Amino acid sequence: MSDSNQSAAVLLIGNELLSGKIQEANLQPLARLLYQRGIRLSRVEMCLDGVDTIAEAVGRLRASHDLLFTSGGIGPTHDDMTLEAIAKALGREVYRDEALAEKIRLRLEEKGITPTDDHYRLADHVVGGRFLSREGQRWPTLVVENIYIMPGVPQVFRLMLEAIGDELATGSAFFTEEVRTWCDEGTIADELKALEEAFPGVMIGSYPVWGNEEYRVKVTFDGSDEAAVKRARDRFVAELDPEKLA
Amino acid sequence: MSDSNQSAAVLLIGNELLSGKIQEANLQPLARLLYQRGIRLSRVEMCLDGVDTIAEAVGRLRASHDLLFTSGGIGPTHDDMTLEAIAKALGREVYRDEALAEKIRLRLEEKGITPTDDHYRLADHVVGGRFLSREGQRWPTLVVENIYIMPGVPQVFRLMLEAIGDELATGSAFFTEEVRTWCDEGTIADELKALEEAFPGVMIGSYPVWGNEEYRVKVTFDGSDEAAVKRARDRFVAELDPEKLA
Repeated sequence: MSDSNQSAAVLLIGNELLSGKIQEANLQPLARLLYQRGIRLSRVEMCLDGVDTIAEAVGRLRASHDLLFTSGGIGPTHDDMTLEAIAKALGREVYRDEALAEKIRLRLEEKGITPTDDHYRLADHVVGGRFLSREGQRWPTLVVENIYIMPGVPQVFRLMLEAIGDELATGSAFFTEEVRTWCDEGTIADELKALEEAFPGVMIGSYPVWGNEEYRVKVTFDGSDEAAVKRARDRFVAELDPEKLA
Repeated sequence: MSDSNQSAAVLLIGNELLSGKIQEANLQPLARLLYQRGIRLSRVEMCLDGVDTIAEAVGRLRASHDLLFTSGGIGPTHDDMTLEAIAKALGREVYRDEALAEKIRLRLEEKGITPTDDHYRLADHVVGGRFLSREGQRWPTLVVENIYIMPGVPQVFRLMLEAIGDELATGSAFFTEEVRTWCDEGTIADELKALEEAFPGVMIGSYPVWGNEEYRVKVTFDGSDEAAVKRARDRFVAELDPEKLA
């Protein structure tokens, strides 16, 4: 992979993920976006709600990667600790944005709800942070330093991904090719190893499925040099028994 | 949470998870099982294929938790590096189990496949490890020290979960109660905070959904003291406007 590719980490926050109460759903769309933008996601962590727990992970991951994305722990309730934790990791304070607070007041009053102090927590940000928004978006994404602070609710997360996508730098984009085969993995393992050695910039993956009627093993070729990716794939296909192509 | 609860970490291994090529599917059933067994899952990490990368995470997570579960990187191809990495983390060697190798030979010859050296990699284990199996299970789960080595293919992963479930110690089991409401989070945030203070052994979670016609916010109560969990839930319901119950 080229040096022009930024590195990224993701921190998924919430007790409900670690108790198996819910199926995590935000990572895949984010990972897909990063991949398309040529950003190399190399580490994902999931942690429990807790200011010190989150702050430790944030401090470590933001220092060891160009970009850090957090998901979850944003909201008005006691288990929403992400902002406080990020502030702690950065040695900064949390402040309340007056314009956002006013927006909250107006929206709630329209619905006949009297805003509480907890409602206004949604207008908080870390000192030195910025608000990222695109036209038509109801709520901005919070960014501070190299940290993108995303909500845990999947529907909101996906809306915010679009705004983030606009601003993420594109390094060398990645290209993917795949070949579906009826081979079993043991039989092609030697050939895949030889291909990895012959094409050092191409990552080769081999993914068996069980009980699938469409193919047995999917082989993938990934890299930022499109021509090399295609050459690796072509060589694999050329050396394959044509009957084994699915 | 009580001291009788063991702690656990999970390491999910594979480039395909971090490129967003596939939706991770093994964590939730494992997390659910651990939860039911009263084992406190406090950390999950995802990492790329790479012996040093995996070995570093394995060494760190197995030292800081009672149990470590890995998923992925087991198989015959070049991107299957988990066993080698675990051996490295433990300062041990990988060996080939002759009885398992024979089983592989027989099964492949039945299918008319000539086994290669790569096929036999499925008979490898770390020195000092053990094979965990239950009746009727086609393939054993590898365990070494406090590390359960699980495959990445979800169908196989789920089969192996059953065998693991038999042997995992039950600490104080956890109990869950939930209340579905039409409240918005800001309005109940104060009450939830007060409940957390009044019931220190009970974890309280608040999960809003968008565009759901069945409820707006689900409030959950979790802990190993069943009576306390129920008391916390009952007090929440008692203080709620009955019209807000979904």
